[in-house]
Amino acid sequence: MKLSVASAMIEAALAEAEKRKVAVCITVVDAAAWPVAFARMDGAPLGVIDVSIKKAKTAVLFHMDSETFAKVAHPNGEAYSLENTNGGLTSFGGGLLLKTADGVIAGAIGVSGASTEDDIAIGRIAARVLTPA
Amino acid sequence: MKLSVASAMIEAALAEAEKRKVAVCITVVDAAAWPVAFARMDGAPLGVIDVSIKKAKTAVLFHMDSETFAKVAHPNGEAYSLENTNGGLTSFGGGLLLKTADGVIAGAIGVSGASTEDDIAIGRIAARVLTPA
Amino acid sequence: MKLSVASAMIEAALAEAEKRKVAVCITVVDAAAWPVAFARMDGAPLGVIDVSIKKAKTAVLFHMDSETFAKVAHPNGEAYSLENTNGGLTSFGGGLLLKTADGVIAGAIGVSGASTEDDIAIGRIAARVLTPA
Amino acid sequence: MKLSVASAMIEAALAEAEKRKVAVCITVVDAAAWPVAFARMDGAPLGVIDVSIKKAKTAVLFHMDSETFAKVAHPNGEAYSLENTNGGLTSFGGGLLLKTADGVIAGAIGVSGASTEDDIAIGRIAARVLTPA
Repeated sequence: MKLSVASAMIEAALAEAEKRKVAVCITVVDAAAWPVAFARMDGAPLGVIDVSIKKAKTAVLFHMDSETFAKVAHPNGEAYSLENTNGGLTSFGGGLLLKTADGVIAGAIGVSGASTEDDIAIGRIAARVLTPA
Repeated sequence: MKLSVASAMIEAALAEAEKRKVAVCITVVDAAAWPVAFARMDGAPLGVIDVSIKKAKTAVLFHMDSETFAKVAHPNGEAYSLENTNGGLTSFGGGLLLKTADGVIAGAIGVSGASTEDDIAIGRIAARVLTPA
Repeated sequence: MKLSVASAMIEAALAEAEKRKVAVCITVVDAAAWPVAFARMDGAPLGVIDVSIKKAKTAVLFHMDSETFAKVAHPNGEAYSLENTNGGLTSFGGGLLLKTADGVIAGAIGVSGASTEDDIAIGRIAARVLTPA
Repeated sequence: MKLSVASAMIEAALAEAEKRKVAVCITVVDAAAWPVAFARMDGAPLGVIDVSIKKAKTAVLFHMDSETFAKVAHPNGEAYSLENTNGGLTSFGGGLLLKTADGVIAGAIGVSGASTEDDIAIGRIAARVLTPA
């Protein structure tokens, strides 16, 4: 995950968040779960900094969006407590796995601060930078 | 959050706790979740020290009382596992967000050691120091 | 260590700090190193919150003032790296062991935010609450 | 610390690092040590991610550049082991305290990945965004 790509994704996410009039934190991690770029919008609650990081980590560590992970790692799911591994993961949407056009895992993006629906939508817009439709 | 205000809130909380014949811990944090003042009443179980700190942090980090946070971070809520972020948060009542009369977030107070009902009531009494009714 | 005693020590420390025109954090812990009371003066750097806690812990965990501990836990001392135990301790002055008039260990007080000399002096004034000269 | 300012500082730091042909990580934190923006240049060793964060935290938590902090927290300094507080701090240069033109603390920037000399120089160039000479 190059910084130029991560920065472009964050720019796209910020523009979409402004359009939706929400304040979010955005984290982009590489395929090994190490942070590449991060931004906190003015007014976002301080607690969502860590949530955006954990969403991105969750997606890349288990090769699935955090929304999907939520079904697995739930008291009624097949791997309840999986969310307690790796220093704490997030069992709800907003962390998106990123793949190149060739299907290779490139990293993940985590968005937090708005409704889960908005967080996911913002992440999807940003992900298009990597794999334009 | 000035120390004089935090101390006055702790005094008010201690007086209310004595009236209710309960022993609690009280933590006041500023708007960035850093502690300003703390007190542990004689006889409070040692475990509630950290609970009072985490209740205050929960409220200020997510701009809502920990009682409200509990509904969001519940297995059936929209953000299950949110309580695992930020070093561990508390999904039950007793952490109250504090705002000035102008509506600006000033910090939070966390009360723990009695029943959740009593903890919340004590926190509310203390909060009046900041925004007298 | 009763809260009434810890609070009186913090009051005495605050008064002395104001007299010296310095802004400090003060932590009082009991004989088992658990916090009883804490206060952060307006303007104290945020980093000294943790320092005041660690100074108090250092003193009570090793039954000596942190100033004395500093001679032991120094690269040239007899127990270099001792400062890395117990979650990190402080090898400089400002943590004072507290004993009752009978010589029984009652806890410790940690003062941080001013010069080490001032921190120690403030701690000594506060300690007199427990053992008046 | 607004995101627009933090982003402009990171842009300035990246440009200076490219000019010096070095790969660094840059972290900008607000006055309460919470991250606002972060970037990792392609090729920077993974270990320096955390170093850049800790350099920024060190500067803002103790109201001094990490280069100055290094003299205090040195085995021969007046506060040896201070670097063990607050989750671990950095006793070498590259963390710069940021103040507004009015002298108010605005946050800090941490640069890591090149020589300490280069890290500091890059941080200084970035800091000019906040207080142009």
